[in-house]
Amino acid sequence: MEPTTATAAPTRAKTHRPTLDDMALPLGKRVRLHRLFYGSGLRNGTLLILPIDQGLEHGPVDFFPNPDSGNPDFQWRLAVEGGYNGVACHYGLARKYMERHAGRVPLILKLNGKTNVPDDDDALSTFTGSVADAVALGADAVGYTVYVGSPRQDQDFLQLQEVREDCDRYSMPLIVWGYPRGAAIEEKGGRDSLYAVDYAARVALELGADIVKLNIPKRGPKDAKQPKDYASLEWTYEQGAERIVRSAGRVPVLVSGGSKLGDDDLITKARIAMEAGACGLIFGRNMWQRPLDQALAITEQVQKEVLAHFPA
Amino acid sequence: MEPTTATAAPTRAKTHRPTLDDMALPLGKRVRLHRLFYGSGLRNGTLLILPIDQGLEHGPVDFFPNPDSGNPDFQWRLAVEGGYNGVACHYGLARKYMERHAGRVPLILKLNGKTNVPDDDDALSTFTGSVADAVALGADAVGYTVYVGSPRQDQDFLQLQEVREDCDRYSMPLIVWGYPRGAAIEEKGGRDSLYAVDYAARVALELGADIVKLNIPKRGPKDAKQPKDYASLEWTYEQGAERIVRSAGRVPVLVSGGSKLGDDDLITKARIAMEAGACGLIFGRNMWQRPLDQALAITEQVQKEVLAHFPA
Amino acid sequence: MEPTTATAAPTRAKTHRPTLDDMALPLGKRVRLHRLFYGSGLRNGTLLILPIDQGLEHGPVDFFPNPDSGNPDFQWRLAVEGGYNGVACHYGLARKYMERHAGRVPLILKLNGKTNVPDDDDALSTFTGSVADAVALGADAVGYTVYVGSPRQDQDFLQLQEVREDCDRYSMPLIVWGYPRGAAIEEKGGRDSLYAVDYAARVALELGADIVKLNIPKRGPKDAKQPKDYASLEWTYEQGAERIVRSAGRVPVLVSGGSKLGDDDLITKARIAMEAGACGLIFGRNMWQRPLDQALAITEQVQKEVLAHFPA
Amino acid sequence: MEPTTATAAPTRAKTHRPTLDDMALPLGKRVRLHRLFYGSGLRNGTLLILPIDQGLEHGPVDFFPNPDSGNPDFQWRLAVEGGYNGVACHYGLARKYMERHAGRVPLILKLNGKTNVPDDDDALSTFTGSVADAVALGADAVGYTVYVGSPRQDQDFLQLQEVREDCDRYSMPLIVWGYPRGAAIEEKGGRDSLYAVDYAARVALELGADIVKLNIPKRGPKDAKQPKDYASLEWTYEQGAERIVRSAGRVPVLVSGGSKLGDDDLITKARIAMEAGACGLIFGRNMWQRPLDQALAITEQVQKEVLAHFPA
Amino acid sequence: MEPTTATAAPTRAKTHRPTLDDMALPLGKRVRLHRLFYGSGLRNGTLLILPIDQGLEHGPVDFFPNPDSGNPDFQWRLAVEGGYNGVACHYGLARKYMERHAGRVPLILKLNGKTNVPDDDDALSTFTGSVADAVALGADAVGYTVYVGSPRQDQDFLQLQEVREDCDRYSMPLIVWGYPRGAAIEEKGGRDSLYAVDYAARVALELGADIVKLNIPKRGPKDAKQPKDYASLEWTYEQGAERIVRSAGRVPVLVSGGSKLGDDDLITKARIAMEAGACGLIFGRNMWQRPLDQALAITEQVQKEVLAHFPA
Repeated sequence: MEPTTATAAPTRAKTHRPTLDDMALPLGKRVRLHRLFYGSGLRNGTLLILPIDQGLEHGPVDFFPNPDSGNPDFQWRLAVEGGYNGVACHYGLARKYMERHAGRVPLILKLNGKTNVPDDDDALSTFTGSVADAVALGADAVGYTVYVGSPRQDQDFLQLQEVREDCDRYSMPLIVWGYPRGAAIEEKGGRDSLYAVDYAARVALELGADIVKLNIPKRGPKDAKQPKDYASLEWTYEQGAERIVRSAGRVPVLVSGGSKLGDDDLITKARIAMEAGACGLIFGRNMWQRPLDQALAITEQVQKEVLAHFPA
Repeated sequence: MEPTTATAAPTRAKTHRPTLDDMALPLGKRVRLHRLFYGSGLRNGTLLILPIDQGLEHGPVDFFPNPDSGNPDFQWRLAVEGGYNGVACHYGLARKYMERHAGRVPLILKLNGKTNVPDDDDALSTFTGSVADAVALGADAVGYTVYVGSPRQDQDFLQLQEVREDCDRYSMPLIVWGYPRGAAIEEKGGRDSLYAVDYAARVALELGADIVKLNIPKRGPKDAKQPKDYASLEWTYEQGAERIVRSAGRVPVLVSGGSKLGDDDLITKARIAMEAGACGLIFGRNMWQRPLDQALAITEQVQKEVLAHFPA
Repeated sequence: MEPTTATAAPTRAKTHRPTLDDMALPLGKRVRLHRLFYGSGLRNGTLLILPIDQGLEHGPVDFFPNPDSGNPDFQWRLAVEGGYNGVACHYGLARKYMERHAGRVPLILKLNGKTNVPDDDDALSTFTGSVADAVALGADAVGYTVYVGSPRQDQDFLQLQEVREDCDRYSMPLIVWGYPRGAAIEEKGGRDSLYAVDYAARVALELGADIVKLNIPKRGPKDAKQPKDYASLEWTYEQGAERIVRSAGRVPVLVSGGSKLGDDDLITKARIAMEAGACGLIFGRNMWQRPLDQALAITEQVQKEVLAHFPA
Repeated sequence: MEPTTATAAPTRAKTHRPTLDDMALPLGKRVRLHRLFYGSGLRNGTLLILPIDQGLEHGPVDFFPNPDSGNPDFQWRLAVEGGYNGVACHYGLARKYMERHAGRVPLILKLNGKTNVPDDDDALSTFTGSVADAVALGADAVGYTVYVGSPRQDQDFLQLQEVREDCDRYSMPLIVWGYPRGAAIEEKGGRDSLYAVDYAARVALELGADIVKLNIPKRGPKDAKQPKDYASLEWTYEQGAERIVRSAGRVPVLVSGGSKLGDDDLITKARIAMEAGACGLIFGRNMWQRPLDQALAITEQVQKEVLAHFPA
Repeated sequence: MEPTTATAAPTRAKTHRPTLDDMALPLGKRVRLHRLFYGSGLRNGTLLILPIDQGLEHGPVDFFPNPDSGNPDFQWRLAVEGGYNGVACHYGLARKYMERHAGRVPLILKLNGKTNVPDDDDALSTFTGSVADAVALGADAVGYTVYVGSPRQDQDFLQLQEVREDCDRYSMPLIVWGYPRGAAIEEKGGRDSLYAVDYAARVALELGADIVKLNIPKRGPKDAKQPKDYASLEWTYEQGAERIVRSAGRVPVLVSGGSKLGDDDLITKARIAMEAGACGLIFGRNMWQRPLDQALAITEQVQKEVLAHFPA
C-alpha cells in the first residue's frame, strides 16, 4: 500500500527513489499510477512489467526458445498468474488477446514501434496507436520509444511532444522507452555506454516523461570514444545504475532486462536495480522464454528479491 | 453457416484456425465479416477472394494471357457466377464497374497501391481511397498493403495506423496485405523467405489487422542469409504454411496465389493452405488469366478442395 | 445531342467508346459532362479542348511561333469563335482572362503543374488550384496531371486521391492527364512507349479518373527495353491508339496533340483517334501556334474530321 | 486619380500597361489596390515601393553604406516624407516600427523569406507571416517570393497556392516576387537571362498573382545556354523590359532596383521601366543606402521621371 | 520600477537600449514583460535569467563540475534565493520541479530543443512544448531557438512563425535564442563571427522576436572567410557587443554566458553587455556549475555590476 504521508521514503535503496508525491502528478495520472504501483502486483510501490512488443521489434525469432510464447495468451496468463503490475504491448495484441484477462492485469499500451529489418543508423519508431486508443482500451499508461541521438530525433521529439500533450489532456501516465540509438551514438561509445544511457535518462526528464525505461549501462570496448568526462570516469555496474537513476531525477526508472540472462545474473540485475533506486523492472524475454511453470518460478524469485528491498 | 457456439472449431485443418469468436470483434466488424465468411461464396467460413488490383500494381501486362480480363467486367462476372466471397480492387474499378453487380458479391476496397515502374528498394504504397470511401461504396472490408522491412516502413506504419483507427471508427474489417519488401529484406533472405513472411504475419497481428494476406514462404538460394535461427531451421512448404498461420495468431490468414501456376500446383496450394489453417484464398491471376469457362471450372475445382476440408 | 437511350453506341469507331451511361456517374458529374459533351462544341459527344497551360509547363517559348498567343485572350477568342468544347488552364489565366468570355465556352481548371526548368527524373506537379476554386469559377471539370512511374508517384497518388475525393464531394468531373514520366520509365522504353502509355491508361482507371488525357504511343528506339511482353509485340500506330482506349475501359480517352505537327499529320491523328474510340481531342500548340484565321481554319478541318466519324 | 472610365489607357508607355479594370479584381482587392495606386504616392497609378526585407535576405551587410539604414525608422521616415506608395517588409519590422507611421504610408507585408547563408541551389523561402497577419496589421497587399525553376518549386507552388487562396478569402492583393533561381536555372542561362525572367513573368500570371515584381533581364555570358529560341534572339535591354511586361499580361509589373546603381543608371532604369509599361518601381538599396537628404533627393528625381510618363 | 514616462531612457549604456514603450507591445505582452523586467530580480529593467536546458542540449556532462546541479531543485533554489528574473527550461523540468517554487520566480518555457549527439551541420530544434503549455504553466515568456543559416532554416522559420502567431494569440512574449549554425555558417567565418551573430540579431528582429538571446561575437581564425565587408572591419569585443545590440533594434538583447569563464571574465562580460545596451544576461553554467554558496556569491557580484549601470 502507498504510504499515506508524502514524506515517507522507500526503504533499502541506496539512492532515493521518487514517490508519487515527488512526481508532481495531476489527479488522473495519480489515480492511474497508484493503480499500477499499489493496486497491482506486489502492491508495494515497485513495478514488475511484462513487455510483449518483441514480435514487432525483433520478429517471431524471439519465440523460438519457447514456441508457446508466440501465442500472446501465454504472456497474459503469465502476467495474471504471476502477479505482474502490467503488460506492455501494441494495439493489435491488446485488441485481440486482452478480452479474457481484462481488468485482471493493467495494460500499458505501447504507442510506437518498428521492425529491426532496416538498420538502426537513423532509427525512428512511428505510431502504432494513440493515447485515445489507450483510453478506449482501459490502459493505465502508455509507452513511447524515443531514440536519443538518432539523426531523426527531430521527428522523434515532435512525436513525443504530441503524445505528451495527449497524455496531459487525458491525464494518462507517459512511460518513455529511453533508447540511445543511431550512427552518432555508435561513434561516441555506443548505445549501452554510460554517456549514452545517462543522456537518455535526462532527455526523458526534460521532455516530460512520467517514468523512463532504461538499460543499465555497461562498460565496453568503445568507452574511450565517449565525451572526455565520461571516458575518464571510473565506475562499476552498480554505480552506473545509480547514476542513471539520479539523472532521471523525479522520473522513476524502470530497468529493462534485455536479452536472456542466466538466472543468477537476472536476480543480480534485479537487486542492483532495487539498490540503485529503480522503481521497477520490465523483464520480457528473461521471463517468457521459458515454459509457464519455469516462468512463474523465476517471476517469484524476482519478486522475492524486490520484496527484500521494498516489503509489501 | 457460422457455427452457433463460439467454441466450435473448424474441421480437417492441422492448425486451429481462428473463428469469429476468437477475433474479439466489435459488433459492426462481426456483421461485415459474417457476411464475407458465411453470407457469400461457399458460406462455410472460408474465403475465396478475387483480387483485381494487378492493373495498378503490374500494369496491363497481366491481361496479355487473357485479353478479356483487361475489362474488369470480366472479373466481376467471374466473381458473381463463380460464387466468390469478394472482389478486391481500387476505388476506380469499383466506381465504374460494380454498379451492375452491386450486392451480388461483396467488395473489399483496396486503399493503397503503386505501380511497379520504380524499383522496390524503398517501397511504399500510398492511398488511393479511404475507409470512408469503402463505407460509401458499401464495401465489407478494406485492404491495406504494408511493406514490412522497407526503409520507409515508418511512413507505412503511420498510414496503417490511420487506416486502423478509421476502421475502428466505422467498424470496418481491416485486411492487411503483409508484404516483406525492400533492400534490407533482400539482404536477409528475400521477400519469400520464411524469416520475412513469418515476420510479416506477426507485424500484421501487432498492428491491428483483422485478416492478413500472405504468400506461403518458399525455400530459396538466399536462405542462409536469414537471421541464424531461421537459416538453420529445417522445414517443408507445408510447415512453412503452418508456421505463418501460427504467427498470425488470432488474425486469420488469406493465402495469396501469386503468378500463374499449373492447375495441379494451384489445387495443391489450396489444399496446403486449408490444412495449414488458412481462412481462405485470394487467387487472382491464377483464375482470371483464362477464358471465362475455364476460369469458372478452375474456380469450382478450388472450391471443391476447400469443401473437402471445411464442408458447407 | 446525347442519345436518349443509354444503349445507343457511337458510330464509326472501331473500338466502342464509353457513353455517359457507361461511366456510372453521380448526378452532378453527369450534368457537367453532358454540358461538355452535348452542350458545347459540336454537341455530338466528342470533345475538342483547347489547353493553355503551356506557359507554365514550357514557358513563353511556346508563344514564339505566334506571338499573339502569349495573350490568353487569343486562345479564348479562338475557343469561342472556333466552337471548342472547353478551355483548360490554371487558376491565374481563368481569373484574369475569362470574365469577358464567361459562359461562352466551358472551363476545365487545371489543378497542378510545374515548370520544365528542373529535369523530369523525379517529376511531381503540385497544386496551383483546388476543386473548390473550380466550383467558384464555374468550371465544368478539373484536370490533374499524374506522372505514372515517377519515383515520387507516392506523393502524386496522395494528391490525386485528395482531388478525387473533393471531386466526389462536389460532383466535379475529374480529367487525369496521364503522363508516364521519370527515370525508371526512361529505362523501360520511355514516356511514349506502348508499355508506358498503356500503363498510364490503366492507372487513371484504377485511381478514379472520369476522363483521361493520353498521348498516342509511338514506336521508338528504346522499345526493346520495355517489359518482355510489350517488347515482343507487333503493333501499328492505329493499334496503339486502340489499345490504350481499351486499357482505359470506361474512362473516355482524350488524345493530346503534343508539339506542332504538319496539317495532314494532325488531321490523320484526329482520324486515328476517332477510329480508335477516343472521346475527343485536346489540341493546343497545333491550334494556337498560328494566326487566328489559320487557327480557326484548322479547327474547322479537325471538326470536319470528327463529324465524319460522329455526326452531330 | 484613377481614370473614371475603364477604357482610359495610361500614357507615354510603348507597351500598354494593365489598368485596374483589366485586372478582373474582386471588390476588396480593387479597394486596396486603388489605395496603393491612386491614394498614395504620386496618386497617378504608378507605384513606388520601398522594400526593407534585405536585413533578412542579405543580413545587416546591406546597411554598411549607410549605417542609419539599419534602423527601420530610417526607411519609414523616407517612405513617409518621400511620398512612397508603400513599404514592403516582414512581420517583425512592421510590428515594432510601423506604429508611429501607421496610416501614413501603406504596408505590403512580405510573407516568406530566408537568409542567403546557405547557397541557392535549391532555394525555397518559407513563411514568416500570413495573410491573416496582413489583415491584422492593416496592410494593403502581401508579397510572396516564388523561386521559379528551383528543384523545390513543387513546395513553393503549394505555399503560393495557400497564400493565393487566403488572398481570395480576404480579398487581399497578392504581389509575387518572381525570382528565377536554382541549379537548373543557372545551367540554362542564369537568373537574369531573358529566358528565366520571361518564364518567371508567365508563372506569376499562371499562378494567380495580382502584381509581379521582376528584374529587367540582362544579356550575359551564359546567354547561349538558354533554350534555343531565346539563345538566338536579338534584343536590347529596353526590349527585354517590354517583353517581360507583355509576358506578365494583365498582371502589372513592378521593376526592382537590385543592388546600388549610379544615379543616372537608376533614372534610366526608371525611364525604361515606364516606357516598357511597368506599373511601378520597387527600389530599396538604391534609395536607402544614402543619407536621408540624398535619399529624398533621388526619390524626387525618380518621381519626376515617372511623372514625365504618367502625369498625376 | 519601470519609469512612468515612456521617454525615460536607461542610464550608463553607451547604446540606447529599448524600453517597453519602444517595443510596441500588445497589452498582455506588456503585462508579462513588466513582470519580468520590473516585478522580479533587481526590478530595474534588467534581466538576469537562469537557463537549465543544458541537460537536453549537452547532456548530464554539464553537471560534472557540480553534481548537485543535476537536480533541477538546485537551480530553482539558486534562482529564488539569488533573486533572478526567471528560470528558462523545457516542459519536463517545469512540470516536475517548479511546483514548490511556483510564483517565486518567473518561468520562461523553452519550446524547442535537441541533443548534441548528431553533428550540427544541418541543425534544427523541434518542439518540446507549446505556447499553450506555457500559458498552462503560468510562464511569463517562451523561448525558441532558431538556427540562422542552417540548411534547414526553412523548416525552422515555419516553426518560428507558428510560435510567433501563437504568442500573438495569447499575448505571450517571445524570446528568440538566435544561434548561427550549420555548414554554411562555418564556411563563412563560424558561429561566433561578427557576420554570423550580427545576421542572427537582425533575423530575430525581422521574424518578430520580442527579445533575442545572443552570444557576443568573437574575433577568430576564420574571420577572413566572412563576407568582405565584415572581413575587413576592425572591431573590439566591446564594439561587437554594441553592433549586435544596434542590429537587434527594438528587440532587447539578452547576452548569454556560454561555457564557464573565470570570475573576472564573467564580470567583464556583464559590464560590456550593460555598456553595450543589452537588456540583460542569461548565465547558466557560469552560475550553477558551483556550490550553492559560491553560486549565490557570483550572482550577487553580477547583480552589483548590473546595478552600477542601471540603479534600481
